[in-house]
Amino acid sequence: MIKLYDFALSGSCYKIRLFLSLLEVPYETQEVDFVNKEHKNEAHLALNPFGEIPIFEDDGLRLRDAQAILVYLAKKYDFNGQWFPDDAAAAGKVAQWLSTGGGEIMNAAGARLVKILNYPLDIEKLQAGAVRVFKILDAHLADREWLELGHPTIADIACFPYTALAGEGGIDLTPYPNVLAWIARIKRLPRFIAMPGIPVIA
Amino acid sequence: MIKLYDFALSGSCYKIRLFLSLLEVPYETQEVDFVNKEHKNEAHLALNPFGEIPIFEDDGLRLRDAQAILVYLAKKYDFNGQWFPDDAAAAGKVAQWLSTGGGEIMNAAGARLVKILNYPLDIEKLQAGAVRVFKILDAHLADREWLELGHPTIADIACFPYTALAGEGGIDLTPYPNVLAWIARIKRLPRFIAMPGIPVIA
Repeated sequence: MIKLYDFALSGSCYKIRLFLSLLEVPYETQEVDFVNKEHKNEAHLALNPFGEIPIFEDDGLRLRDAQAILVYLAKKYDFNGQWFPDDAAAAGKVAQWLSTGGGEIMNAAGARLVKILNYPLDIEKLQAGAVRVFKILDAHLADREWLELGHPTIADIACFPYTALAGEGGIDLTPYPNVLAWIARIKRLPRFIAMPGIPVIA
Repeated sequence: MIKLYDFALSGSCYKIRLFLSLLEVPYETQEVDFVNKEHKNEAHLALNPFGEIPIFEDDGLRLRDAQAILVYLAKKYDFNGQWFPDDAAAAGKVAQWLSTGGGEIMNAAGARLVKILNYPLDIEKLQAGAVRVFKILDAHLADREWLELGHPTIADIACFPYTALAGEGGIDLTPYPNVLAWIARIKRLPRFIAMPGIPVIA
Protein backbone atom coordinates (compact mmCIF):
# COMPACT_ATOMS: atom_id res chain seq x y z
CA MET A 1 0.00 0.00 0.00
CA ILE A 2 1.24 3.48 -0.89
CA LYS A 3 2.07 5.61 2.14
CA LEU A 4 2.09 9.39 1.93
CA TYR A 5 3.63 11.51 4.68
CA ASP A 6 1.05 14.20 4.46
CA PHE A 7 -0.14 17.54 5.82
CA ALA A 8 -3.69 18.58 5.04
CA LEU A 9 -2.82 22.25 4.42
CA SER A 10 0.23 21.59 2.24
CA GLY A 11 -0.33 22.32 -1.42
CA SER A 12 2.63 20.08 -2.26
CA CYS A 13 1.10 17.10 -0.45
CA TYR A 14 -2.23 17.91 -2.07
CA LYS A 15 -0.62 17.55 -5.51
CA ILE A 16 -0.04 13.90 -4.65
CA ARG A 17 -3.45 13.29 -3.04
CA LEU A 18 -5.15 14.89 -6.03
CA PHE A 19 -3.21 12.87 -8.59
CA LEU A 20 -3.74 9.61 -6.67
CA SER A 21 -7.45 10.37 -6.67
CA LEU A 22 -7.53 11.18 -10.39
CA LEU A 23 -5.70 7.90 -11.09
CA GLU A 24 -7.96 5.98 -8.65
CA VAL A 25 -4.95 4.60 -6.78
CA PRO A 26 -5.56 3.73 -3.11
CA TYR A 27 -3.14 4.97 -0.44
CA GLU A 28 -2.78 5.62 3.24
CA THR A 29 -1.48 8.78 4.84
CA GLN A 30 0.63 9.54 7.87
CA GLU A 31 -0.10 13.06 9.05
CA VAL A 32 3.02 15.15 9.75
CA ASP A 33 2.77 17.97 12.30
CA PHE A 34 4.13 20.57 9.91
CA VAL A 35 3.20 23.51 12.14
CA ASN A 36 5.43 22.13 14.90
CA LYS A 37 8.11 21.22 12.34
CA GLU A 38 7.89 17.46 12.75
CA HIS A 39 9.26 17.22 9.18
CA LYS A 40 12.54 18.67 10.50
CA ASN A 41 13.03 16.13 13.30
CA GLU A 42 15.59 13.34 13.18
CA ALA A 43 13.16 10.58 12.22
CA HIS A 44 11.80 12.58 9.30
CA LEU A 45 15.22 13.80 8.16
CA ALA A 46 16.20 10.12 7.94
CA LEU A 47 13.33 9.71 5.45
CA ASN A 48 14.06 12.95 3.59
CA PRO A 49 17.26 14.85 4.42
CA PHE A 50 15.83 17.92 2.70
CA GLY A 51 13.36 18.22 5.58
CA GLU A 52 10.31 18.60 3.39
CA ILE A 53 7.01 16.91 2.73
CA PRO A 54 5.52 15.11 0.89
CA ILE A 55 7.51 11.93 1.42
CA PHE A 56 6.18 8.97 -0.51
CA GLU A 57 6.60 5.21 -0.14
CA ASP A 58 5.43 2.45 -2.48
CA ASP A 59 6.55 -1.15 -2.33
CA GLY A 60 9.97 -0.44 -0.80
CA LEU A 61 10.62 2.66 -2.88
CA ARG A 62 10.88 6.00 -1.08
CA LEU A 63 10.72 9.31 -2.93
CA ARG A 64 10.91 12.98 -1.94
CA ASP A 65 9.78 16.01 -3.96
CA ALA A 66 6.22 16.43 -5.20
CA GLN A 67 7.22 16.68 -8.86
CA ALA A 68 9.32 13.50 -8.73
CA ILE A 69 6.43 11.66 -7.09
CA LEU A 70 4.10 12.85 -9.88
CA VAL A 71 6.59 11.48 -12.43
CA TYR A 72 6.67 8.13 -10.66
CA LEU A 73 2.89 7.89 -10.31
CA ALA A 74 2.32 8.75 -13.97
CA LYS A 75 4.83 6.12 -15.12
CA LYS A 76 3.54 3.49 -12.70
CA TYR A 77 -0.22 3.90 -12.64
CA ASP A 78 -1.29 5.83 -15.74
CA PHE A 79 -1.74 2.93 -18.10
CA ASN A 80 -2.63 5.21 -21.02
CA GLY A 81 0.61 7.19 -20.69
CA GLN A 82 -1.26 10.47 -21.11
CA TRP A 83 -0.26 12.24 -17.91
CA PHE A 84 3.48 12.15 -18.65
CA PRO A 85 4.01 10.71 -22.12
CA ASP A 86 7.20 8.91 -23.14
CA ASP A 87 7.44 10.86 -26.39
CA ALA A 88 10.48 13.16 -26.21
CA ALA A 89 8.81 16.41 -27.25
CA ALA A 90 5.77 15.78 -25.06
CA ALA A 91 7.93 14.85 -22.05
CA GLY A 92 10.10 17.93 -22.50
CA LYS A 93 7.09 20.23 -22.74
CA VAL A 94 5.53 18.78 -19.59
CA ALA A 95 8.86 18.83 -17.72
CA GLN A 96 9.10 22.59 -18.23
CA TRP A 97 6.08 23.05 -16.00
CA LEU A 98 7.29 20.56 -13.41
CA SER A 99 10.17 22.99 -12.94
CA THR A 100 7.77 25.93 -12.79
CA GLY A 101 5.51 24.16 -10.30
CA GLY A 102 8.45 23.40 -8.01
CA GLY A 103 10.10 26.72 -8.78
CA GLU A 104 8.54 30.09 -9.61
CA ILE A 105 5.04 29.14 -8.42
CA MET A 106 6.51 28.38 -4.99
CA ASN A 107 6.71 32.15 -4.54
CA ALA A 108 2.96 31.97 -3.98
CA ALA A 109 3.48 29.14 -1.48
CA GLY A 110 6.00 31.28 0.40
CA ALA A 111 3.64 34.26 0.52
CA ARG A 112 0.96 31.95 1.91
CA LEU A 113 3.33 30.68 4.63
CA VAL A 114 3.88 34.29 5.72
CA LYS A 115 0.12 34.92 5.85
CA ILE A 116 -1.08 31.72 7.51
CA LEU A 117 1.94 30.62 9.61
CA ASN A 118 3.80 33.92 10.10
CA TYR A 119 6.98 32.68 8.41
CA PRO A 120 9.65 35.44 8.52
CA LEU A 121 9.97 35.79 4.73
CA ASP A 122 9.87 38.83 2.42
CA ILE A 123 6.21 38.71 1.42
CA GLU A 124 6.41 41.59 -1.05
CA LYS A 125 9.20 39.90 -2.97
CA LEU A 126 7.32 36.59 -2.90
CA GLN A 127 4.06 38.17 -4.06
CA ALA A 128 5.92 39.98 -6.88
CA GLY A 129 7.52 36.70 -7.95
CA ALA A 130 4.14 34.98 -7.92
CA VAL A 131 2.51 37.73 -9.95
CA ARG A 132 5.29 37.47 -12.53
CA VAL A 133 4.58 33.78 -13.08
CA PHE A 134 0.78 34.19 -13.00
CA LYS A 135 1.06 36.76 -15.81
CA ILE A 136 3.10 34.27 -17.85
CA LEU A 137 0.61 31.50 -17.04
CA ASP A 138 -2.32 33.69 -18.05
CA ALA A 139 -0.73 34.57 -21.40
CA HIS A 140 0.20 30.92 -22.00
CA LEU A 141 -3.39 29.82 -21.30
CA ALA A 142 -4.93 32.46 -23.60
CA ASP A 143 -5.25 29.91 -26.40
CA ARG A 144 -4.95 26.65 -24.45
CA GLU A 145 -7.20 24.65 -22.17
CA TRP A 146 -4.30 22.79 -20.52
CA LEU A 147 -0.65 23.72 -20.01
CA GLU A 148 0.62 21.33 -22.67
CA LEU A 149 -0.51 18.67 -25.16
CA GLY A 150 -4.17 19.71 -25.29
CA HIS A 151 -5.13 17.48 -22.37
CA PRO A 152 -4.44 17.27 -18.62
CA THR A 153 -0.89 16.25 -17.68
CA ILE A 154 1.21 16.29 -14.53
CA ALA A 155 2.24 19.80 -15.66
CA ASP A 156 -1.24 20.96 -14.65
CA ILE A 157 -1.15 19.04 -11.37
CA ALA A 158 2.27 20.47 -10.46
CA CYS A 159 1.20 24.06 -11.07
CA PHE A 160 -2.39 23.96 -9.88
CA PRO A 161 -2.38 23.90 -6.04
CA TYR A 162 -0.32 26.97 -5.18
CA THR A 163 -1.95 28.88 -8.02
CA ALA A 164 -5.42 28.05 -6.70
CA LEU A 165 -4.26 28.94 -3.16
CA ALA A 166 -2.78 32.30 -4.21
CA GLY A 167 -5.51 34.25 -2.45
CA GLU A 168 -4.32 32.85 0.91
CA GLY A 169 -0.99 34.54 0.19
CA GLY A 170 -2.71 37.86 -0.50
CA ILE A 171 -2.49 37.55 -4.28
CA ASP A 172 -5.59 38.42 -6.29
CA LEU A 173 -6.10 36.23 -9.37
CA THR A 174 -8.96 38.28 -10.89
CA PRO A 175 -6.55 39.99 -13.34
CA TYR A 176 -5.81 36.52 -14.77
CA PRO A 177 -9.06 35.22 -16.27
CA ASN A 178 -7.37 32.45 -18.26
CA VAL A 179 -5.78 31.16 -15.07
CA LEU A 180 -9.16 31.24 -13.33
CA ALA A 181 -10.77 29.33 -16.22
CA TRP A 182 -7.96 26.73 -16.08
CA ILE A 183 -8.48 26.33 -12.31
CA ALA A 184 -12.19 25.72 -12.91
CA ARG A 185 -11.35 23.23 -15.66
CA ILE A 186 -9.13 21.22 -13.31
CA LYS A 187 -11.88 21.25 -10.69
CA ARG A 188 -14.19 19.60 -13.19
CA LEU A 189 -11.91 16.60 -13.78
CA PRO A 190 -13.51 13.29 -12.76
CA ARG A 191 -12.51 12.34 -9.19
CA PHE A 192 -11.20 15.84 -8.43
CA ILE A 193 -10.82 16.30 -4.67
CA ALA A 194 -10.82 19.49 -2.60
CA MET A 195 -8.43 20.73 0.08
CA PRO A 196 -8.89 23.57 2.59
CA GLY A 197 -8.72 26.71 0.45
CA ILE A 198 -9.48 24.85 -2.79
CA PRO A 199 -13.18 23.98 -2.68
CA VAL A 200 -14.97 21.97 -5.32
CA ILE A 201 -17.17 23.90 -7.74
CA ALA A 202 -20.67 24.24 -6.28
CA MET B 1 19.99 21.33 -36.46
CA ILE B 2 19.61 21.90 -32.73
CA LYS B 3 20.00 25.54 -31.71
CA LEU B 4 20.99 26.51 -28.17
CA TYR B 5 20.66 30.08 -26.94
CA ASP B 6 23.80 29.96 -24.91
CA PHE B 7 26.11 31.89 -22.57
CA ALA B 8 29.59 30.50 -22.03
CA LEU B 9 29.68 31.28 -18.29
CA SER B 10 26.19 29.94 -17.52
CA GLY B 11 26.22 26.65 -15.64
CA SER B 12 22.64 26.04 -16.80
CA CYS B 13 23.60 26.37 -20.48
CA TYR B 14 26.65 24.21 -19.81
CA LYS B 15 24.35 21.41 -18.58
CA ILE B 16 22.98 21.26 -22.11
CA ARG B 17 26.33 21.61 -23.92
CA LEU B 18 27.78 18.88 -21.70
CA PHE B 19 24.90 16.47 -22.24
CA LEU B 20 24.88 17.10 -26.01
CA SER B 21 28.58 16.30 -26.05
CA LEU B 22 28.14 13.12 -23.99
CA LEU B 23 25.39 12.01 -26.38
CA GLU B 24 27.44 13.04 -29.44
CA VAL B 25 24.60 15.15 -30.79
CA PRO B 26 25.64 18.07 -33.04
CA TYR B 27 24.23 21.55 -32.38
CA GLU B 28 24.78 25.21 -33.03
CA THR B 29 24.76 27.98 -30.47
CA GLN B 30 23.57 31.55 -30.47
CA GLU B 31 25.45 33.49 -27.82
CA VAL B 32 23.23 35.61 -25.54
CA ASP B 33 24.75 38.73 -23.96
CA PHE B 34 23.73 37.71 -20.45
CA VAL B 35 25.86 40.38 -18.76
CA ASN B 36 23.91 43.11 -20.58
CA LYS B 37 20.63 41.25 -19.97
CA GLU B 38 19.89 40.42 -23.59
CA HIS B 39 17.82 37.47 -22.26
CA LYS B 40 15.39 40.01 -20.77
CA ASN B 41 14.76 41.94 -24.00
CA GLU B 42 11.56 41.70 -26.01
CA ALA B 43 12.89 39.32 -28.66
CA HIS B 44 14.16 36.87 -26.03
CA LEU B 45 11.06 37.15 -23.85
CA ALA B 46 9.08 36.11 -26.93
CA LEU B 47 11.19 32.92 -26.98
CA ASN B 48 11.03 32.40 -23.20
CA PRO B 49 8.71 34.62 -21.15
CA PHE B 50 10.57 33.57 -18.01
CA GLY B 51 13.54 35.61 -19.26
CA GLU B 52 16.10 32.88 -18.70
CA ILE B 53 18.60 30.85 -20.66
CA PRO B 54 19.15 28.22 -21.93
CA ILE B 55 16.50 28.30 -24.63
CA PHE B 56 16.55 25.27 -26.90
CA GLU B 57 15.18 24.59 -30.39
CA ASP B 58 15.07 21.32 -32.29
CA ASP B 59 13.06 20.68 -35.42
CA GLY B 60 10.34 23.24 -34.65
CA LEU B 61 10.18 22.44 -30.95
CA ARG B 62 11.19 25.17 -28.50
CA LEU B 63 11.91 24.41 -24.82
CA ARG B 64 12.94 26.47 -21.80
CA ASP B 65 14.45 25.23 -18.52
CA ALA B 66 17.67 23.24 -18.39
CA GLN B 67 16.10 20.25 -16.65
CA ALA B 68 13.25 20.00 -19.18
CA ILE B 69 15.79 20.16 -22.01
CA LEU B 70 17.76 17.32 -20.39
CA VAL B 71 14.54 15.26 -20.23
CA TYR B 72 13.89 15.90 -23.92
CA LEU B 73 17.44 15.09 -25.00
CA ALA B 74 17.51 11.86 -23.00
CA LYS B 75 14.20 10.71 -24.51
CA LYS B 76 15.14 11.77 -28.03
CA TYR B 77 18.82 10.91 -28.41
CA ASP B 78 19.76 8.36 -25.72
CA PHE B 79 18.92 5.22 -27.62
CA ASN B 80 19.83 2.99 -24.67
CA GLY B 81 17.39 4.78 -22.34
CA GLN B 82 19.97 4.88 -19.57
CA TRP B 83 20.16 8.61 -18.89
CA PHE B 84 16.45 8.93 -17.99
CA PRO B 85 14.88 5.47 -17.96
CA ASP B 86 11.19 4.89 -18.63
CA ASP B 87 10.86 2.56 -15.62
CA ALA B 88 8.68 4.27 -13.00
CA ALA B 89 10.94 3.84 -9.97
CA ALA B 90 14.06 4.81 -11.94
CA ALA B 91 12.34 7.87 -13.45
CA GLY B 92 11.07 8.97 -10.04
CA LYS B 93 14.51 8.63 -8.44
CA VAL B 94 16.17 10.63 -11.20
CA ALA B 95 13.41 13.27 -11.19
CA GLN B 96 14.14 13.99 -7.51
CA TRP B 97 17.54 15.35 -8.50
CA LEU B 98 16.20 17.29 -11.46
CA SER B 99 14.26 19.25 -8.85
CA THR B 100 17.38 19.60 -6.68
CA GLY B 101 19.49 20.71 -9.64
CA GLY B 102 16.97 23.38 -10.59
CA GLY B 103 16.19 24.15 -6.96
CA GLU B 104 18.42 23.97 -3.89
CA ILE B 105 21.68 23.81 -5.86
CA MET B 106 20.76 27.12 -7.51
CA ASN B 107 21.70 28.71 -4.18
CA ALA B 108 25.30 28.13 -5.28
CA ALA B 109 24.52 29.71 -8.65
CA GLY B 110 23.12 32.76 -6.89
CA ALA B 111 26.18 33.11 -4.67
CA ARG B 112 28.34 32.96 -7.81
CA LEU B 113 26.27 35.72 -9.49
CA VAL B 114 26.97 37.94 -6.48
CA LYS B 115 30.70 37.22 -6.66
CA ILE B 116 31.27 37.42 -10.42
CA LEU B 117 28.54 39.85 -11.58
CA ASN B 118 27.80 41.81 -8.39
CA TYR B 119 24.14 40.77 -8.31
CA PRO B 120 22.41 42.43 -5.31
CA LEU B 121 21.47 39.17 -3.58
CA ASP B 122 21.94 37.96 0.01
CA ILE B 123 25.16 35.99 -0.44
CA GLU B 124 25.28 34.65 3.11
CA LYS B 125 21.82 33.17 2.81
CA LEU B 126 22.68 31.72 -0.60
CA GLN B 127 25.95 30.22 0.63
CA ALA B 128 24.17 28.71 3.65
CA GLY B 129 21.54 27.19 1.35
CA ALA B 130 24.24 25.77 -0.88
CA VAL B 131 26.15 24.28 2.05
CA ARG B 132 22.95 22.63 3.26
CA VAL B 133 22.50 20.81 -0.04
CA PHE B 134 26.21 19.95 -0.43
CA LYS B 135 26.09 18.24 2.98
CA ILE B 136 23.10 16.20 1.85
CA LEU B 137 24.81 15.42 -1.46
CA ASP B 138 27.99 14.34 0.32
CA ALA B 139 26.09 11.99 2.63
CA HIS B 140 24.09 10.60 -0.29
CA LEU B 141 27.30 9.92 -2.24
CA ALA B 142 29.02 8.17 0.69
CA ASP B 143 28.07 4.76 -0.69
CA ARG B 144 27.27 5.65 -4.30
CA GLU B 145 29.28 6.53 -7.39
CA TRP B 146 26.37 8.26 -9.11
CA LEU B 147 23.28 10.03 -7.74
CA GLU B 148 20.90 7.22 -8.73
CA LEU B 149 20.74 3.84 -10.50
CA GLY B 150 24.46 3.05 -10.20
CA HIS B 151 25.31 4.76 -13.47
CA PRO B 152 25.32 8.31 -14.87
CA THR B 153 21.89 9.83 -15.45
CA ILE B 154 20.53 13.31 -16.13
CA ALA B 155 20.32 13.61 -12.33
CA ASP B 156 24.12 13.92 -12.30
CA ILE B 157 24.13 16.36 -15.22
CA ALA B 158 21.48 18.57 -13.57
CA CYS B 159 23.37 18.79 -10.28
CA PHE B 160 26.97 18.86 -11.50
CA PRO B 161 27.69 22.35 -12.94
CA TYR B 162 26.77 24.62 -10.05
CA THR B 163 28.27 22.16 -7.59
CA ALA B 164 31.56 22.15 -9.50
CA LEU B 165 31.40 25.97 -9.74
CA ALA B 166 30.74 26.43 -6.00
CA GLY B 167 34.21 27.87 -5.40
CA GLU B 168 33.34 30.84 -7.64
CA GLY B 169 30.54 31.62 -5.20
CA GLY B 170 32.93 31.52 -2.26
CA ILE B 171 31.91 28.03 -1.14
CA ASP B 172 34.68 25.59 -0.22
CA LEU B 173 33.94 21.98 -1.22
CA THR B 174 36.90 20.41 0.65
CA PRO B 175 34.64 19.36 3.57
CA TYR B 176 32.68 17.22 1.06
CA PRO B 177 35.10 14.56 -0.23
CA ASN B 178 32.36 12.38 -1.70
CA VAL B 179 31.13 15.34 -3.72
CA LEU B 180 34.67 16.01 -4.95
CA ALA B 181 35.10 12.37 -5.95
CA TRP B 182 31.77 12.51 -7.83
CA ILE B 183 32.87 15.66 -9.66
CA ALA B 184 36.09 13.91 -10.71
CA ARG B 185 34.07 10.88 -11.82
CA ILE B 186 31.87 13.04 -14.08
CA LYS B 187 34.96 14.69 -15.54
CA ARG B 188 36.22 11.26 -16.59
CA LEU B 189 33.12 10.46 -18.67
CA PRO B 190 33.90 9.94 -22.36
CA ARG B 191 33.40 13.19 -24.32
CA PHE B 192 33.28 15.31 -21.15
CA ILE B 193 33.78 18.98 -22.00
CA ALA B 194 35.06 21.83 -19.83
CA MET B 195 33.68 25.31 -19.22
CA PRO B 196 35.39 28.32 -17.63
CA GLY B 197 35.68 27.38 -13.94
CA ILE B 198 35.25 23.64 -14.63
CA PRO B 199 38.51 22.44 -16.18
CA VAL B 200 39.13 18.94 -17.42
CA ILE B 201 41.26 16.70 -15.20
CA ALA B 202 44.92 17.16 -16.11
